[in-house]
Amino acid sequence: MSSPSPAVPPRFGVNYTPRRGWFHAWLDLEPQEIVEDLAAIASLGADHVRIFPLWPLLQPNRTLIRRRALEDVRTVVDLAAQVGLDVVVDALQGHLSSFDFVPSWLTSWHRRNMFTDSEVVSSTADLVRALGAELAGAPNLIGLSVGNEVNQFSASNHPDPDPLSVEQAAQWTATMLGAARESLPEGLHSVANYDAAWFLDDHSFTPDQSGTLGDATVVHSWIFDGTGQRYGGRSYETAHRGEYYLELARGFSPVPERPLWLQEVGAPRNVLEEADVPWFVTETIVHALDVPQLWGVTWWCSHDVSADLADFPPLEHTLGLFDAQGRLKPAGEAFRDVVAHGHETAAPAPRGRAIDWPVGPEPLLRRGAAAPGGAVFEAWMEASRAEERPTIRVVREEVELAGGDTRTGGAAATRRVD
Amino acid sequence: MSSPSPAVPPRFGVNYTPRRGWFHAWLDLEPQEIVEDLAAIASLGADHVRIFPLWPLLQPNRTLIRRRALEDVRTVVDLAAQVGLDVVVDALQGHLSSFDFVPSWLTSWHRRNMFTDSEVVSSTADLVRALGAELAGAPNLIGLSVGNEVNQFSASNHPDPDPLSVEQAAQWTATMLGAARESLPEGLHSVANYDAAWFLDDHSFTPDQSGTLGDATVVHSWIFDGTGQRYGGRSYETAHRGEYYLELARGFSPVPERPLWLQEVGAPRNVLEEADVPWFVTETIVHALDVPQLWGVTWWCSHDVSADLADFPPLEHTLGLFDAQGRLKPAGEAFRDVVAHGHETAAPAPRGRAIDWPVGPEPLLRRGAAAPGGAVFEAWMEASRAEERPTIRVVREEVELAGGDTRTGGAAATRRVD
Repeated sequence: MSSPSPAVPPRFGVNYTPRRGWFHAWLDLEPQEIVEDLAAIASLGADHVRIFPLWPLLQPNRTLIRRRALEDVRTVVDLAAQVGLDVVVDALQGHLSSFDFVPSWLTSWHRRNMFTDSEVVSSTADLVRALGAELAGAPNLIGLSVGNEVNQFSASNHPDPDPLSVEQAAQWTATMLGAARESLPEGLHSVANYDAAWFLDDHSFTPDQSGTLGDATVVHSWIFDGTGQRYGGRSYETAHRGEYYLELARGFSPVPERPLWLQEVGAPRNVLEEADVPWFVTETIVHALDVPQLWGVTWWCSHDVSADLADFPPLEHTLGLFDAQGRLKPAGEAFRDVVAHGHETAAPAPRGRAIDWPVGPEPLLRRGAAAPGGAVFEAWMEASRAEERPTIRVVREEVELAGGDTRTGGAAATRRVD
Repeated sequence: MSSPSPAVPPRFGVNYTPRRGWFHAWLDLEPQEIVEDLAAIASLGADHVRIFPLWPLLQPNRTLIRRRALEDVRTVVDLAAQVGLDVVVDALQGHLSSFDFVPSWLTSWHRRNMFTDSEVVSSTADLVRALGAELAGAPNLIGLSVGNEVNQFSASNHPDPDPLSVEQAAQWTATMLGAARESLPEGLHSVANYDAAWFLDDHSFTPDQSGTLGDATVVHSWIFDGTGQRYGGRSYETAHRGEYYLELARGFSPVPERPLWLQEVGAPRNVLEEADVPWFVTETIVHALDVPQLWGVTWWCSHDVSADLADFPPLEHTLGLFDAQGRLKPAGEAFRDVVAHGHETAAPAPRGRAIDWPVGPEPLLRRGAAAPGGAVFEAWMEASRAEERPTIRVVREEVELAGGDTRTGGAAATRRVD
């Protein structure tokens, strides 16, 4: 068993959804409103926010990166510093709360593959570099995240997916992270893939990529992924879903000290009763604190989407720690209290025994076993219930496939041996 | 033969393409730059501009119409007044120079039919009304145009077309024009359909709609529609293409005095030699002046698209009367001179004999005959060459279809008898 790295206290943050106008607030940046929102977030004991500038506003033409849009991002970072918050800037939106934000030079008559077209990729990297250059020197900048969940544009269930290979997905991710690194050598840069990367067998963004590219392994844990539906809102599984996901991520860490980041987790009311939300907030964070190498937890989200805005999935209107008028909700009180508790919690001991996840040599195989309802998920939960504090071991040994075919791991497959 | 209405001098204008940042200039409105552009346009003798706010900026969420975006439109209208220009405001962009601008609440996961979904139509009408309310009282406002070329979103050659019936297209157009009329009772409101409405047999936006809805019949005459390719750049046909189109439009006028508006015409270098551009500008406008009931000619466009902006069809970089540095081009000199000539030209006599366009009782039938290369187009050009100054008569009589089937015109079919 590897030794854990020296304990670094985990960080607590919030994904910042502007109270007035949602992310359309970027069109009419009002520093006073922003700083009020950020001060409210800081009042909960959070130390950072994740912010989401919109791609079509930053880069309305492929070769036009707007100076003022960059300055607006820097303004929000500086406003956060005023209230003592660090910031992670998500570099490509992309996709937020069911809405796709893709510039006109990539849609319709100008439709090209976002991930593989060389002009598109090079121009997208230019945007990441320009953001990095604008943010260089901001003392409260944590780093850039490639996302939000841009991998969904390649998912087979997207209305108009961009096909690409595993190698191309890795290449694209490395290019974006390289651009971030070039302009911000010191930052903590990450890729913000959503669940498909972990659980969809046909998805070209893979756990290996999430686990090895960038400076932390990021997971977005949403219990509407089947966990809530299958096991119930107030269930053991929903309470431990985030912790499980972090341990799953650890299975792909090339070194034991790689940071694990619960970058998005929220309390969706389509599978949670309103009365159970404070319980869910508390349980989720308490159990995440039992994960060594936890970099931090960033809650989704700060403010409810106003009922004045149309066409959101209903649950998006209720995910906030504050409501659309800026009033603290019970979820926010629970977050504040568990963050205070977190600040006093000792670093966790190393995890207990490993549940095997036999992925075979091909990382594309058998991802479904780790999804809610899958064998790996269920075995982990059973061991957890037995207080074994399980982790996950990714097993890449030769596996027998239907028809007697066998495959062995290639040179690229890192075999984890605890 | 009907008598022409008392002659009203035709108007000359320019479609305004901002010199810096193209239409993305709306994101960073710089009044000083705008007024410089507009003063340059006014210096050519133009009396009006057509302007194009972008839909996703005005209405980023279905129920969020941005106050500042409305104010920006009003600002540009007021700046135009400062330099003596009237303004037509295009209410829905929509589509400009190959780029689609559709808000995120209508694309991808939120894809709905733009023309027939009742929530979408009602919200779109709200935007038209909001624009009208913002512009009410502007003494230099001509009216609103529904466009630009929004009908392309229903065209069978669009990458992702919205299907609808002829009745639905008429209903949608009437709804938008009704919203314009409600908020601006005095304005000249029009629908800015592109060629497909006139020449594509399967298109649900029809000549009848363009000819009867709104306060003027609008045509957008582009010689890259086959005219330039088939007959040559410096040909009789390219010189008379605009005039022909206006006469074609007249064929659907329910009353003789209905205004006819050459709302877009430009000099595309993919079918014109650079040296022939001044000739084309002059010829196009001189021949348009020979059309009774001409409301005006609005040239496309004011300023070249900067070479710094990517992914435009190459010809879009050279359509300006001014270059991207604001320098007057030979095309602009020709425009200025022919406008001066136009101000001294007497009202034209009534047109000569009519070329029949046998559309049958169904307006969807046989539109192709009027397109470049079609029988109606060629017969008109032949009569024009013979100096007969022909017009077009739309013939809706019973026609014999393949297989001996016949159809007769219904009550809605207006039979034009000269």
